[in-house]
Amino acid sequence: MLCRCKYLKRLNDKKNAETPTKLVYLDNCATTPVDPRVIGAMETACRKTWGNPSSIHLAGLEAAKLLDKCRIDVGTFLDCPPEKVYFCGSATDALFTVIKGFNPKKFHFITTAIEHSAIISPLLHLKNKGHNVDFLKVDSNGQICISEFEKLLKHKDAVFFYSPINHETGSIQSIREIYQLKKNYNVTIVMDAVQAVTRLTTEKWQPYYDIIVLGSHKFYAPKGTGLFAIKNKTSKLHKFRSGSKQEDGYFPGTQNIPGITACAEAIKLLSNDEISRLKILHTEGLKILQNEVPQFAVNTPSNSQTGILNISLMGKNVNLMEKLILTMAEEQICVSRFSACNGKIKIPSQILKEMGFSYERAMTSLRISCGRFNSRDDFFRLARFLKIWQNKLIQL
Amino acid sequence: MLCRCKYLKRLNDKKNAETPTKLVYLDNCATTPVDPRVIGAMETACRKTWGNPSSIHLAGLEAAKLLDKCRIDVGTFLDCPPEKVYFCGSATDALFTVIKGFNPKKFHFITTAIEHSAIISPLLHLKNKGHNVDFLKVDSNGQICISEFEKLLKHKDAVFFYSPINHETGSIQSIREIYQLKKNYNVTIVMDAVQAVTRLTTEKWQPYYDIIVLGSHKFYAPKGTGLFAIKNKTSKLHKFRSGSKQEDGYFPGTQNIPGITACAEAIKLLSNDEISRLKILHTEGLKILQNEVPQFAVNTPSNSQTGILNISLMGKNVNLMEKLILTMAEEQICVSRFSACNGKIKIPSQILKEMGFSYERAMTSLRISCGRFNSRDDFFRLARFLKIWQNKLIQL
Repeated sequence: MLCRCKYLKRLNDKKNAETPTKLVYLDNCATTPVDPRVIGAMETACRKTWGNPSSIHLAGLEAAKLLDKCRIDVGTFLDCPPEKVYFCGSATDALFTVIKGFNPKKFHFITTAIEHSAIISPLLHLKNKGHNVDFLKVDSNGQICISEFEKLLKHKDAVFFYSPINHETGSIQSIREIYQLKKNYNVTIVMDAVQAVTRLTTEKWQPYYDIIVLGSHKFYAPKGTGLFAIKNKTSKLHKFRSGSKQEDGYFPGTQNIPGITACAEAIKLLSNDEISRLKILHTEGLKILQNEVPQFAVNTPSNSQTGILNISLMGKNVNLMEKLILTMAEEQICVSRFSACNGKIKIPSQILKEMGFSYERAMTSLRISCGRFNSRDDFFRLARFLKIWQNKLIQL
Repeated sequence: MLCRCKYLKRLNDKKNAETPTKLVYLDNCATTPVDPRVIGAMETACRKTWGNPSSIHLAGLEAAKLLDKCRIDVGTFLDCPPEKVYFCGSATDALFTVIKGFNPKKFHFITTAIEHSAIISPLLHLKNKGHNVDFLKVDSNGQICISEFEKLLKHKDAVFFYSPINHETGSIQSIREIYQLKKNYNVTIVMDAVQAVTRLTTEKWQPYYDIIVLGSHKFYAPKGTGLFAIKNKTSKLHKFRSGSKQEDGYFPGTQNIPGITACAEAIKLLSNDEISRLKILHTEGLKILQNEVPQFAVNTPSNSQTGILNISLMGKNVNLMEKLILTMAEEQICVSRFSACNGKIKIPSQILKEMGFSYERAMTSLRISCGRFNSRDDFFRLARFLKIWQNKLIQL
């Protein structure tokens, strides 16, 4: 792989040498642009409500009041008690804290083989230490088999960590069926809703979790805020940090009031209408690509129209993915292959492999993820680029 | 103690009923107002550099470039390698991560009895689990005895956690002497510089640490960013989190770019001149109080003029501290007794007790901490209030 510095220099040279073109950003699963309306709320919090919410005087109490209000806004959206919303710095931190909250000697940890590294990595760590951890296989639609899951639930109290919508392929799990297993088994459902809240209408996920995790920079708020929230009575989560009592001891340290304000403001801007619009853009975007680009396969299941479109370019691209990503970047087109936390380009997609796709398909995948600020134009730009790229390869 | 809601309501009623007076904020140790110049930098980062720094495309690389720049700015200020600066959500989180980084089976943990709860609490937890942890006593100046410290260093590799300047009394440790012990003993010096960077000129602390911890909301940046930095080669710190590789694995999760940008910007605004100004304000503020307010004792050592002024009102105040703080809040005067993380009013100061002061003195203490946006006027307002308060008590 090119070292980041050289890569950056090349991009900069290219950028400086040319008339600026508009950035085509189709990587909303990695992060979203910040909504200007959210910036305003954050700025106001910085200017006016800068007190320490733990301080017992006017500046502090104003901050505490704002924090309470944010907790109510988030709790309302999640349909859970506001006092059970716990703010921290990132969804990764929230997930880690929840995972550490369950005693691995008492609980059977279950997840799917296609989760984000924020779940896979700490659970793999527990498994390697000899604890009871299972990774459920998925089919070519990225779905777990409910009866296989059920088999695992028979012996011990369990906790299941999963994302209702996959961050790389957009495939959707059987959210309601998974939750219904609670009728017969003692299983706590921890939902990584980082991608879901902008891509699935609330009635699809809101009733079906015990603990939920969000990261604000995936829904048009700035980076720096994550949270988990507990909806249903669950075994008391162990708190592994110490230092002070903020966020009920789960996250000691002064709360990020401007970040939390932005997070709550961004949550109020989410709407089911926007999700419908994303579904239309997904369908139209795919049509645009199919009309223009020769020779590619679609990895996202056809019933998962959530704005995450995973395709494989196939053929000679097997050895050219790094070059492709770099060339696209030079054209100011931002698309990725995996989760940004992965940080690699030239490897096969582990998730596509888990879904049973071929090496060629896993090696040549692209994740195109759209969001609030995308339009058909972005797909036209991407399609034009990929058309030229694919045609060149065919002629090679 | 009054419940927070009732207290807040009373304050709000009072505030709404009256012509607004200017807030007197003398609690800069708890948090500082955000400098408007810093808000601008943060806003620009939100609007223009919202990419995920781990993404391998233009939006991501721009964010990575900004992150690198911030790391250089912070490293320059701390005089340590930029690549050894690790950003997270708060100083408490940074301290906890550093503490967890040392194997308690191999290291002897040493600290002082007057540190912030972010140090005391996790170390007490280790001690209760049977590990080798010592809390050094302090004298009436809040200083440890170097020879007592030295005695503890003879048997094992040690790590010493301390703040060069106490967050409640402003007392200053023998920073150079402590560091010089490294000549003869294998001790790693972890400096909690949360209060120091705005109150001690750089030459007083910069050469004398191995690992340093900062929290941005204590130096006029918004809440939500902390950091630790490693200056000298030290035993490799264990990383207890997993999930992804950001911040070299110490803090997995997408970095808070706007917060980090604000943190770096705020660091560039710190100056030794400002610290000199704070020293003058400290001296003048004390004079103003001494001229106006009857019957109080000064707990801050006379050679510690850093803008943290700890006084005890003595006498009948022993049972009236809650009422005092509430009445002050109603007058829009923000002063505290302890660290905000403590959250209590009606208890004696543990730190003053450790310094050997009487129960009366520990029960009636006030921490008056000034900063960039304070002037003599704030001390006049406070003095006028305390004069009336103390005179009323005398007549009771």
